[in-house]
Amino acid sequence: MTALRFEIEDLYAAYAECLDDGELERWPDFFTDECLYKIIPRENYERGLPLAVMLCESKGMLQDRVEALRRTSVYAPRALRHLLSGIRIKGHEDGLIRVQASYAVLQTLTDEETRVFNAGKYLDRLVRDGGELKFKEKLCVFDSVVVPGSLIYPI
Amino acid sequence: MTALRFEIEDLYAAYAECLDDGELERWPDFFTDECLYKIIPRENYERGLPLAVMLCESKGMLQDRVEALRRTSVYAPRALRHLLSGIRIKGHEDGLIRVQASYAVLQTLTDEETRVFNAGKYLDRLVRDGGELKFKEKLCVFDSVVVPGSLIYPI
Amino acid sequence: MTALRFEIEDLYAAYAECLDDGELERWPDFFTDECLYKIIPRENYERGLPLAVMLCESKGMLQDRVEALRRTSVYAPRALRHLLSGIRIKGHEDGLIRVQASYAVLQTLTDEETRVFNAGKYLDRLVRDGGELKFKEKLCVFDSVVVPGSLIYPI
Repeated sequence: MTALRFEIEDLYAAYAECLDDGELERWPDFFTDECLYKIIPRENYERGLPLAVMLCESKGMLQDRVEALRRTSVYAPRALRHLLSGIRIKGHEDGLIRVQASYAVLQTLTDEETRVFNAGKYLDRLVRDGGELKFKEKLCVFDSVVVPGSLIYPI
Repeated sequence: MTALRFEIEDLYAAYAECLDDGELERWPDFFTDECLYKIIPRENYERGLPLAVMLCESKGMLQDRVEALRRTSVYAPRALRHLLSGIRIKGHEDGLIRVQASYAVLQTLTDEETRVFNAGKYLDRLVRDGGELKFKEKLCVFDSVVVPGSLIYPI
Repeated sequence: MTALRFEIEDLYAAYAECLDDGELERWPDFFTDECLYKIIPRENYERGLPLAVMLCESKGMLQDRVEALRRTSVYAPRALRHLLSGIRIKGHEDGLIRVQASYAVLQTLTDEETRVFNAGKYLDRLVRDGGELKFKEKLCVFDSVVVPGSLIYPI
């Protein structure tokens, strides 16, 4: 139990580090081959509306997403910083671990002060895959009704 | 020791989740029947001035607070997000556990960007009550001298 | 392992508390006599440029820094709040423990709302010194290319 908890904490720290260091090519490796990754506004989530800001339904789609991001260079350079809080095991059965956490992504654009870019909660399902914990499902439910136009990077 | 630490971490995660999910009716259940809940500006706390922004001296008063909030509908809808950091056991004697943590509450109003609404520290006293850890005292000391007019929800 | 992890978490909580409570005189005690403390913009760090915003190469220099800060009274009063996330042991060999964490420092100036003042990551090296874990090296790499003029307090 203690070991699993620490493993999960380290996984989330590594996930945040990957994104904050801009190593997007490593990002899909946090997921199983068949997976669901979704960024969805809180209101849509609560009303059961399917509309998502980002939706990937396999590791291949995650990789495509990264490639598309790398090919596009219209985005201003920015530094991201994930702050996670309240990482918590909400359920654990048949090899499936449900984990919830709150997140805030801070963004620093060149010559600007650091701002809160996006905040919300992760609703995740993890499985052990080849010895390592991976995301089978990662739902990022963010605290806005409006969709930030600049939500182009994974959360 | 390990178990107590995890129990406390989970308690704080659950407390934050309750408030962030807007389930205010469950909020008083985190406290013992006789309790003290207080939101106080840093300066007042340091100078020993009693003036608090919110003060409840029993679970009944917490419940009254929630009812009053629910009856009032003048407040703009908002999403809150608690980020906690440095949850730490500062003392443990005679069944009383002193816990301190830093908090930031992010707020997202409709059509606005997410902002830091309030930040400060929790100075708490926990006891075991019917098997569960509950707040006997929860002091929210926030980092401002001015009182935000919109501090209507519990922190 | 569990004990070391908790010890490190508590150390970081105590470090943040020391700075947030404004007890700067206690700050150098978190370091070994010979140490390196450095605040450096992300770009300089990544390019290997040595230019740092703050640089102290011994505990004595840290103490000098605090004294200088205390003698100067031109700075507006402010409250700082450190939020740490993803505290993680990255290596442990020959008594040297490498720890990484993300941080955000929130700042509240009198009569102003709380803002994100600085965010980035700690890249630290800890050693056991007289029984206690101390920073032999603490690198604060912040997420900006511009140097905030008001970066006068330790991070």
